[in-house]
Amino acid sequence: MSVKLVVIGGGSSYTPEIIEGIIRRYKSLPITEIALVDVEEGKDKVITIAKLAERMIEKSGEPIQVNWTLDRKKALRNADFVSTQIRVGGLDAREKDERIPLRHGFIGQETNGAGGIMKAFRTIPVLLELAEDVQEICPNAWIINFTNPAGIITEALLKHSAHKRVIGVCNIPFNMRHSTAEILNANPNQVKIEFVGMNHFVFGQRVFVDGIDRTNEVLTNLANEKLDYSPANIVSLGWSKGFINSMKLLPNPYHQYYYQTTDILTKDKEALKEHGTRAKVVKNLEKSLFTIYSNKDLNVKPKQLEERGGAFYSDVACSLIDSIYNNKGDIQTVNACNNGAIADLPNDSVIEVNCFITKNGPKPIAIGSLPPQIKGDILQMKAFEELVILASISGDYNLAYQAFIANPLIKDERKIKSLLDELLCAHKEYLPQFNKGGTGDE
Amino acid sequence: MSVKLVVIGGGSSYTPEIIEGIIRRYKSLPITEIALVDVEEGKDKVITIAKLAERMIEKSGEPIQVNWTLDRKKALRNADFVSTQIRVGGLDAREKDERIPLRHGFIGQETNGAGGIMKAFRTIPVLLELAEDVQEICPNAWIINFTNPAGIITEALLKHSAHKRVIGVCNIPFNMRHSTAEILNANPNQVKIEFVGMNHFVFGQRVFVDGIDRTNEVLTNLANEKLDYSPANIVSLGWSKGFINSMKLLPNPYHQYYYQTTDILTKDKEALKEHGTRAKVVKNLEKSLFTIYSNKDLNVKPKQLEERGGAFYSDVACSLIDSIYNNKGDIQTVNACNNGAIADLPNDSVIEVNCFITKNGPKPIAIGSLPPQIKGDILQMKAFEELVILASISGDYNLAYQAFIANPLIKDERKIKSLLDELLCAHKEYLPQFNKGGTGDE
Amino acid sequence: MSVKLVVIGGGSSYTPEIIEGIIRRYKSLPITEIALVDVEEGKDKVITIAKLAERMIEKSGEPIQVNWTLDRKKALRNADFVSTQIRVGGLDAREKDERIPLRHGFIGQETNGAGGIMKAFRTIPVLLELAEDVQEICPNAWIINFTNPAGIITEALLKHSAHKRVIGVCNIPFNMRHSTAEILNANPNQVKIEFVGMNHFVFGQRVFVDGIDRTNEVLTNLANEKLDYSPANIVSLGWSKGFINSMKLLPNPYHQYYYQTTDILTKDKEALKEHGTRAKVVKNLEKSLFTIYSNKDLNVKPKQLEERGGAFYSDVACSLIDSIYNNKGDIQTVNACNNGAIADLPNDSVIEVNCFITKNGPKPIAIGSLPPQIKGDILQMKAFEELVILASISGDYNLAYQAFIANPLIKDERKIKSLLDELLCAHKEYLPQFNKGGTGDE
Amino acid sequence: MSVKLVVIGGGSSYTPEIIEGIIRRYKSLPITEIALVDVEEGKDKVITIAKLAERMIEKSGEPIQVNWTLDRKKALRNADFVSTQIRVGGLDAREKDERIPLRHGFIGQETNGAGGIMKAFRTIPVLLELAEDVQEICPNAWIINFTNPAGIITEALLKHSAHKRVIGVCNIPFNMRHSTAEILNANPNQVKIEFVGMNHFVFGQRVFVDGIDRTNEVLTNLANEKLDYSPANIVSLGWSKGFINSMKLLPNPYHQYYYQTTDILTKDKEALKEHGTRAKVVKNLEKSLFTIYSNKDLNVKPKQLEERGGAFYSDVACSLIDSIYNNKGDIQTVNACNNGAIADLPNDSVIEVNCFITKNGPKPIAIGSLPPQIKGDILQMKAFEELVILASISGDYNLAYQAFIANPLIKDERKIKSLLDELLCAHKEYLPQFNKGGTGDE
Ligand SMILES: [Mn+2]
Ligand SMILES: [Mn+2]
Ligand SMILES: [Mn+2]
Ligand SMILES: [Mn+2]
Repeated sequence: MSVKLVVIGGGSSYTPEIIEGIIRRYKSLPITEIALVDVEEGKDKVITIAKLAERMIEKSGEPIQVNWTLDRKKALRNADFVSTQIRVGGLDAREKDERIPLRHGFIGQETNGAGGIMKAFRTIPVLLELAEDVQEICPNAWIINFTNPAGIITEALLKHSAHKRVIGVCNIPFNMRHSTAEILNANPNQVKIEFVGMNHFVFGQRVFVDGIDRTNEVLTNLANEKLDYSPANIVSLGWSKGFINSMKLLPNPYHQYYYQTTDILTKDKEALKEHGTRAKVVKNLEKSLFTIYSNKDLNVKPKQLEERGGAFYSDVACSLIDSIYNNKGDIQTVNACNNGAIADLPNDSVIEVNCFITKNGPKPIAIGSLPPQIKGDILQMKAFEELVILASISGDYNLAYQAFIANPLIKDERKIKSLLDELLCAHKEYLPQFNKGGTGDE
Repeated sequence: MSVKLVVIGGGSSYTPEIIEGIIRRYKSLPITEIALVDVEEGKDKVITIAKLAERMIEKSGEPIQVNWTLDRKKALRNADFVSTQIRVGGLDAREKDERIPLRHGFIGQETNGAGGIMKAFRTIPVLLELAEDVQEICPNAWIINFTNPAGIITEALLKHSAHKRVIGVCNIPFNMRHSTAEILNANPNQVKIEFVGMNHFVFGQRVFVDGIDRTNEVLTNLANEKLDYSPANIVSLGWSKGFINSMKLLPNPYHQYYYQTTDILTKDKEALKEHGTRAKVVKNLEKSLFTIYSNKDLNVKPKQLEERGGAFYSDVACSLIDSIYNNKGDIQTVNACNNGAIADLPNDSVIEVNCFITKNGPKPIAIGSLPPQIKGDILQMKAFEELVILASISGDYNLAYQAFIANPLIKDERKIKSLLDELLCAHKEYLPQFNKGGTGDE
Repeated sequence: MSVKLVVIGGGSSYTPEIIEGIIRRYKSLPITEIALVDVEEGKDKVITIAKLAERMIEKSGEPIQVNWTLDRKKALRNADFVSTQIRVGGLDAREKDERIPLRHGFIGQETNGAGGIMKAFRTIPVLLELAEDVQEICPNAWIINFTNPAGIITEALLKHSAHKRVIGVCNIPFNMRHSTAEILNANPNQVKIEFVGMNHFVFGQRVFVDGIDRTNEVLTNLANEKLDYSPANIVSLGWSKGFINSMKLLPNPYHQYYYQTTDILTKDKEALKEHGTRAKVVKNLEKSLFTIYSNKDLNVKPKQLEERGGAFYSDVACSLIDSIYNNKGDIQTVNACNNGAIADLPNDSVIEVNCFITKNGPKPIAIGSLPPQIKGDILQMKAFEELVILASISGDYNLAYQAFIANPLIKDERKIKSLLDELLCAHKEYLPQFNKGGTGDE
Repeated sequence: MSVKLVVIGGGSSYTPEIIEGIIRRYKSLPITEIALVDVEEGKDKVITIAKLAERMIEKSGEPIQVNWTLDRKKALRNADFVSTQIRVGGLDAREKDERIPLRHGFIGQETNGAGGIMKAFRTIPVLLELAEDVQEICPNAWIINFTNPAGIITEALLKHSAHKRVIGVCNIPFNMRHSTAEILNANPNQVKIEFVGMNHFVFGQRVFVDGIDRTNEVLTNLANEKLDYSPANIVSLGWSKGFINSMKLLPNPYHQYYYQTTDILTKDKEALKEHGTRAKVVKNLEKSLFTIYSNKDLNVKPKQLEERGGAFYSDVACSLIDSIYNNKGDIQTVNACNNGAIADLPNDSVIEVNCFITKNGPKPIAIGSLPPQIKGDILQMKAFEELVILASISGDYNLAYQAFIANPLIKDERKIKSLLDELLCAHKEYLPQFNKGGTGDE
């Protein structure tokens, strides 16, 4: 038995984590071939990564082959799994997504608000092309989408490509479960959180340890700021007692943008002054990571990688691949087609949900109706996501405008046009679909 | 044939408008008995109004009897129509609804945001009691609810009372149709606007004159600020070209609170400094109105009444009563039970919708799916309204908190508890249902 | 002002009724040009009809031009309304639809059961082509579809053609309203029946005369067999008291096939022995009608036409055209897109429903949830109709089989294959879409 | 750790199977106390069973206590699981359910058609009382409902009692999985069938062995009559090739009543003449079983028990209890609250569905939309079930009539009243709720 994994965006600084995860699981999940694919601009990086990967594998002694290539189609031949972790426009584009909205008075964030929308606009057409290639070249392969905004992108692929084997992943539910396990003195495997919502807008409804409901303890810890499961890229302000006591739900770290908007805006403006954008911070982080990676004596994943926000992503992805390959039938929290699981949302919406995972992919566990206290916000976010997808694909200016105004973080008709126009212009190079039409001025 | 109308809150300064409307329509709609009902605190006002009404009727020569009473149950005997225009807590309560949120950094408005929620909290229990009386004493009577927030209150009554003959009315759709007619050089009767949404959150989708679609002309006028249908109580900032061009919908005046939040907040803070709250302005207006009303020579509705925001309310209400009484089968825009008309909303939601009006009440004309560009906002507002109703009835602190955070104008978990606590305390006298329980602090 | 009507299937024996209706309404509905279109096989008949029409118009003195042609595309130029009343395969095909199922032990009927399905299979592709022509040649024209099964065909056109101005009509709701008016001693215009369901499966929920609910009287008359609104082509057995008393709904005449299946089957088998199929009866009727039509002295619609089942169809159609043309805003019962009106059915289902009729076509009045006592039957019939449409368009054998087994009148897996195979073979000439594929035997 | 199981209807001849299952699983599922509860009429039987159980337990050497009692409330104290396997009216009532409809020309069956409805009418009020007792006395206990019609009864309890820990079980999905495993030469644990539908109306959509789709093989075997998973109480006629080839689904044995109605009716009429009703056969079977059970040397479950239709019920129930108790997280097919799993059905419908089973009960795996070829039939059956529940609880004659006519097996308005009236009269003793009102004759 042998398994082939293709990593789209293989030159990413995250890749060593995946390599480590694959090596560690080799006995149960025999991935024997890894193809690292990147674009011309990423050639140096993917070569550095490939070499590091080879040293890591050599150290492990497992019979895994690793290659790099710029030829995606060739790499896809015989693939069983295709992971995607690309960044169209690179950190420069992210820098604009963070800086420009902030200057207009809005949250500037990679996956939320105006920044997240622009990232979707740049990324969806590229990944749709990938999905078409996969469908043609290796139709049985599963696409494991790491690329943000992961939920929106997964929905775009499932709705608009013929390839239906697409799963989106995020480390937030994983982090929430692990941090919660820690505070409850439990093993993460004993802990189950009933999640409800979408990627980066998911809530925990109930927490069970070995089937015993321990939600109240978790809420108390949250209300007393003794529990914090924010990743490295999000500085948490903590949640007020009133919020936790009245909502009786576990928010996720990204919810701060929606429920603490003013304070976060103030904090982010200050942070910008002091350190520049997060993109700039990450650029430096990346630079030093690649210096470390280039060290020919390095043959393990270096500790420093954990300072990035995406820690544990590979654990999430490798576990998922493992369960699919081995038809495990365990429960994992992934982004998958709703199919009625949340009764208030369309069947073809993508949600972040506990799924039963087998060789046939993820099957959501039915949730029923949305909790009333978040029903409105979730319905609004999903309607917003639908507009983002339509705009991404059509390149229609009015749809882009509608996506902006549908987002709760930029709901200001007196400011949207100039913000949108500046962003479309700044990212022009990566938005061919928007360059055909007008700018709504006619 | 004779018809009896009971006016709950008959001491309102708006009442002369209704009286005028009744007199004018007497030939087709023979209302022969009007009972003006008010509470002890409003006794002087209702007596003044009753006397003015008598003079107006005497001048008209129509055989209409008008009485005032503080005994609601007695007044309801044999009633055919019951209109409600009450203000629990009076203008003092409104003053708090406007002032307190503003001080916490939020929109302070009578029917939107925190102010609107508090008004609902105070009013719903009172009108539920009325509905029970109506069901017992005059079960065939139609309740025509003028009282704001009119949509939420109508939904509360239809969901939680046994009396199902309840219709909510607002002058906004009427104003939009009349102003649009004017700009199109048409008679209002020729103009039909396809509305979609809820009270104070309704949009116009398409405008027809004699069946010809003239939506684009209207949008152009809106984008060029040549069309403004704001009532006296809302100072419009106008809509940006980008907004109108991209949304392709007619917003209603109250939408400024949601799509121009920052600017309105700034404007309202300045207005507060200069003139005090709108409640204070209205108090003075009312005072001078009642001075005018007391003039024994006055036997018509005085011009000055039109300066209040509710102009044309009586036209709306009298037309509705007329169509019900005469089984007219015309189309009017009222607040009624959705029953599938907007496919995305529950059957038992109340929406503001074009209805076919007969003796059996309003029947909505089916709309189908919500327009994508406003789907999220409408679903969110409806989910918010549902929480307001649950909180109003239960007096549950957590539900009140959830209603606050579900409202897009006060979505800030770091500020809500102090705002909510202050408002609950300020209105304590009129919120018996909330005085039983805790304040969520345990 | 001038209006052009194109009659597809102009050689139909029903056409004189339409001509009469047009002449009678000329003052309000100035149809100045009528194009009668037919196919080669119908040439003699359409010429006969055109000549009769000319004599009728001449007698009337109205300035109406009537022409016949076999060139559909030419006729469609500048059309405002296009009515369709075709019979693909003629009465010979109908004869098979009636005879073959009966021989297999099933109801053999033109619009219900196996016969109705086969009629849909033959007709839908032909009318889809027409709809495409209309969309190309006269996109603003309204298609008024008389052709049976009218509901299914209207749904097929609305779902699968780009032309969205399609309305289906049937005389059953008209007949029910008129017969009910008679028994209640009322003018039909005063009577409103709240209908719920689909074409030939519609129920009356409530009956109002001038807005007064008189449903119980009507039910009593039905239970006592004093009210019968069956058309000439359906011999009614009457409804049992128990049925009417417990269901509290007005069934339509076609419901006998579903709720009296065994007795109808027995009756129809006997009728077949005695008189042959209804198709044969109609053939003779048609023959004698055309003999009458050919009489050069005839310049009115002859009485004998009323013996066919479709009496009043033209009243229904002309009223509809009148209301559209004159933007009347009255209520008519037609087959239109659900759009949420019945909350349990998809938005894009076609239902038979009271609609508000304007220049912009029919807008259903919202009904809400289906009455529980018929919910299951209506949902089943609609799911069946969806399969018929899919099979009609795809020519897929399995879908055809599924449509058969989904129909409550032929739900017998041990008999369907031979019935279906015989019918597909018998109608081979008119089912090109089914001739491509296999017969499910592989 | 100790677990208490209460068996309501403990005198059932099936009980030894449960006892055996409990003994076999003792190591993982330590049920230490079994209370067998029955009614006065069943006293002798429950004593016989209790004694046999004691002998079986003694032989096993496990420390399990078994008691019998007629005092249900006392038995419920400290219960962890409550299984229900009652037969209100006993086999005499079943005999009537089988015989009477057949005489009127309809299917006479214990859980389908008129017989199934009457069984629901007799049973639902009794089990609702049980559920109330459970909620009061042992609110954490799970009710495992074996009693037929199991799906309808489970829905009735979940909708109308405060006790929400209710799960319905049936051996049909178990049988289908095991028979399918056999034909595929697989271990049942490797086989997963995706089920869709309701109890006794469930279909298999896809069959997987170790995650590999082997549906086509199974369908081929079904079409060639090489696979038959009918229980002892249903004599299968086999399925036609055409049906299986075109539907591409696995029917369950009870589907014969719906898709082979005429042939089954013929067969059943003949069987009645030859052997009497199935109830009579079972009576004799029971008699001889109890003779065997009384043998003081017997200390195992006797082979003869397998001749009844309910074989493997105890396997199903014990597995379920095991997974709940041990928080196993495996997949089992049970009757549970839909919660969106089938998007076309209400959230509060009960469906037969693959569930993820933990200490917190069953959570359905989302299915999405119904397969089009069975959508209509499933929607109809569910609407029918809803009427049965309403009628059972209200005792309303009209609702009973509506339930009858909503059932596809008795859809004949000319025969229902006499059938219904005879059945209501025959079961009068066990239908107190229907004795209050009229018979719809007024
Ligand atoms: Mn993420
Ligand atoms: Mn208003
Ligand atoms: Mn018809
Ligand atoms: Mn069963």
